[in-house]
Amino acid sequence: MALEAGRLVDEARELLAALFNIKNPDRIVFTMNATEALNLAIKGLLKEGQHVITSSMEHNSVTRPLYVLQGKGVEVTKVPCAKDGSISVKDIESAIKPNTAAVVITHASNVTGTIMPIGEIGQLTKKKGLCLIVDAAQTAGVFDLDVSFMGINLLAFPGHKGLYGPTGTGGLYIDERLELTPLKEGGTGSYSEAPGQPEVLPERYESGTVNSVGIAGLAAGLKFIRMEGIDRIRKHEMDLTKRFLEGVSGLKGITLYGPEELYNRAPVVSFSLEGKPSGKVGYALDQQYKIACRAGLHCAPDAHRTLGTLEQRLVRFSFSYFNTEKEVDFAIRSLAEIAEIPPGEFNKGEDKSCGC
Amino acid sequence: MALEAGRLVDEARELLAALFNIKNPDRIVFTMNATEALNLAIKGLLKEGQHVITSSMEHNSVTRPLYVLQGKGVEVTKVPCAKDGSISVKDIESAIKPNTAAVVITHASNVTGTIMPIGEIGQLTKKKGLCLIVDAAQTAGVFDLDVSFMGINLLAFPGHKGLYGPTGTGGLYIDERLELTPLKEGGTGSYSEAPGQPEVLPERYESGTVNSVGIAGLAAGLKFIRMEGIDRIRKHEMDLTKRFLEGVSGLKGITLYGPEELYNRAPVVSFSLEGKPSGKVGYALDQQYKIACRAGLHCAPDAHRTLGTLEQRLVRFSFSYFNTEKEVDFAIRSLAEIAEIPPGEFNKGEDKSCGC
Repeated sequence: MALEAGRLVDEARELLAALFNIKNPDRIVFTMNATEALNLAIKGLLKEGQHVITSSMEHNSVTRPLYVLQGKGVEVTKVPCAKDGSISVKDIESAIKPNTAAVVITHASNVTGTIMPIGEIGQLTKKKGLCLIVDAAQTAGVFDLDVSFMGINLLAFPGHKGLYGPTGTGGLYIDERLELTPLKEGGTGSYSEAPGQPEVLPERYESGTVNSVGIAGLAAGLKFIRMEGIDRIRKHEMDLTKRFLEGVSGLKGITLYGPEELYNRAPVVSFSLEGKPSGKVGYALDQQYKIACRAGLHCAPDAHRTLGTLEQRLVRFSFSYFNTEKEVDFAIRSLAEIAEIPPGEFNKGEDKSCGC
Repeated sequence: MALEAGRLVDEARELLAALFNIKNPDRIVFTMNATEALNLAIKGLLKEGQHVITSSMEHNSVTRPLYVLQGKGVEVTKVPCAKDGSISVKDIESAIKPNTAAVVITHASNVTGTIMPIGEIGQLTKKKGLCLIVDAAQTAGVFDLDVSFMGINLLAFPGHKGLYGPTGTGGLYIDERLELTPLKEGGTGSYSEAPGQPEVLPERYESGTVNSVGIAGLAAGLKFIRMEGIDRIRKHEMDLTKRFLEGVSGLKGITLYGPEELYNRAPVVSFSLEGKPSGKVGYALDQQYKIACRAGLHCAPDAHRTLGTLEQRLVRFSFSYFNTEKEVDFAIRSLAEIAEIPPGEFNKGEDKSCGC
């Protein structure tokens, strides 16, 4: 019966390997979320005295592990990005030093949706013998991710976003040539007599009971993606993004962030309304219109520093395959109503928003 | 909508606090499983040059993190337990040295069910100013666990065993006076501008998306326990354990492990059948009788060394509130059948068991 559950988990591994063009499914290890995967990648790889390059658009799941490593003698360079969130591969190249070991970067900003040129960065890191760590939190299941073609050595992904699994799932692909220090040790159900962790994957990085229930749900999500086709999913989400961008672009006091060209963007849009705190706008959307959005810093203060929105903060919309044109049109109309309210009137009353 | 999900997670925290007599629910942090909780407790607390005492009956979720710490200058003493798995509190006291910082011990052995005298150990650690870390993998939801009364400073528990939650859930209680190094850093949805982890709990130790779906299931399990009453649950499980022990004690070639007195035991029974590899016995129970058991080393090689069963290995039964007397009687009859087969005949054919 336990083996049967194990087979289900392995099926999810095989589906992920097919999605990301990974030859050996056992090089994919399951984690609680993308954050744990990034911690394992970053802290499992980098050692005292090494240098790592990252961007100024990263989520705290990248910047905070790096901050801890800085305290332990790892050097960190944050390459500044442009106002639309984009990065220059030349700037990454210029940041390389003799002790550079890795580049860690998001595939797409969780604030502006800006797509990073992973393929080009992968060519650079390959040429220079560096390790490329990619945070695919915004793109897994929506954009092509081919670890071999793109030269990705460590790929962190969440299960509960574009892969349509439940919360509590996520994972990390680990290149055959890499050996990471595990974050956790414990029972692995194999090589139990050994005093330390077994060398073999995936057990080495999967101690204790895995979230088999959640991973079974993730497998169902992955089968759904295979059935629909990633191109169709992306097309639908980008059509909605385009519709939304066009629909809100003329609204009173709106500022839209991120790349102008749609093809440089994941289906994520952030904006502000002049004179209206983003937390209050998000709260109004949630309470009055039942529209789910996220207002605040999106756990990415560096990205907001890059955009100059650390104080104003932003409201973020992201579009899913299950959203409809009708919903997008309703969101546009709702925002238009909020935009028309004079700031003085809108800002009255207690700020009950979370806005973090 | 996100706040609503957060409230569900907080409800689970409050239910756990009530169960374990924890004053401040925010001192409970959710993890993927008990193994992660033990890693956070052990590696988050102990520093180079410190000494830690443990027992010879621990699971790899305790011994393997300790093994890693040994490589980093932490001293470890494993107090030998008796053949029935029991430990002498005097032996623990004798092992204390000037640099001893903590005692880490299971509440009940996952192999023999032997209950450790946590209350007495807690008095000792309190008197000596040591930290008491308890692994409640076998007892949470079944035996009384009162962190205040028992002097427990760090309590690790799984969600998917006696608390009737799904896989992917577990947690750690952290005493107000303790400050651990987090295992993971990342987005916490609060204090997002800070470069490092916030000081405030539970966020400090809960980076990234929590398993809200799983934790909602755990909350349902906790409500079920509150409704039924932990005493009634334990009584039923111990009645089944007694029935099973009495029913199998006369079987041909059986050796039963663990304490003789039922009150020293959690509802876990391990045994061997002379001349029959435990893996094969477990496989037969699963395939022919559809009885779930676990054969092998149970990720606790130290415990098997203590019992002298590292080679023979054992078959383990554990009894749940949902098991019935009828099922126990069927298990007894099934084992009686297996016991009567001559070893030569039983051992024929390929060994397909996992037995790890």
